[in-house]
Amino acid sequence: MERINGHSGPHSVAECNSKLGAIGDALYVIGGKWRLRIIVALTEGGTRFNELQRMLPGISPRVLSNELKELEINGFLTRTVFTDIPVVVEYKLTPYSRTLDSVMGALVEWGEMHRVKIRQDDTQIAKPIAQEAIL
Amino acid sequence: MERINGHSGPHSVAECNSKLGAIGDALYVIGGKWRLRIIVALTEGGTRFNELQRMLPGISPRVLSNELKELEINGFLTRTVFTDIPVVVEYKLTPYSRTLDSVMGALVEWGEMHRVKIRQDDTQIAKPIAQEAIL
Repeated sequence: MERINGHSGPHSVAECNSKLGAIGDALYVIGGKWRLRIIVALTEGGTRFNELQRMLPGISPRVLSNELKELEINGFLTRTVFTDIPVVVEYKLTPYSRTLDSVMGALVEWGEMHRVKIRQDDTQIAKPIAQEAIL
Repeated sequence: MERINGHSGPHSVAECNSKLGAIGDALYVIGGKWRLRIIVALTEGGTRFNELQRMLPGISPRVLSNELKELEINGFLTRTVFTDIPVVVEYKLTPYSRTLDSVMGALVEWGEMHRVKIRQDDTQIAKPIAQEAIL
């Protein structure tokens, strides 16, 4: 199980299962296509439903609504209804959402690294094809 | 945009969009319900299709097959066919899959922390209900 935490050395089966469970828990709560992106959109200053929908191209109102509810249940955001006319609903991140900083940081770093790799791979693949075209 | 990397201080719009793009790239490749779990199952020593399916309760053969293909295309695993009788297909993680260590580590750590929080929340919710029952 040494891969998961990046340290070498032996781990017990119980320790290994506990780590697998923790990854499972994390993915259960923040996995899926939209959850982290919704949190990012809220970080960027989005507070209203329509605003969030504009910031997340491709999300349907039904999915956005469900995901916001799940994020609220899990303590990442608060939903406040202001009973003015028109009624205003405001979504805001909680301090607890900040606990995801290290996960977000690791994802940003890895995504940047992976993007560079993909570009390099593309260049390497493109070269032989160009040579073949000349032959 | 200060939340994403956990540092305070101003960031430019370009820097912010680049980080959002990087998270998007990362989630595109390793997001979804199964990908990281498949990598974890391979880390645990699974090498055959049926073995992986047993280790991942709830995954259908079609989804597992598609996800393995995607992970191969993205350079996380190799698929080797041994033309013995019966034919043996072996899936193995590449050294590149190790670049996910920090992402996995952050997820394990966060998942463990979140599990403790959920248990505490449950205890806090359970108490008032017990008092009401007495009244």
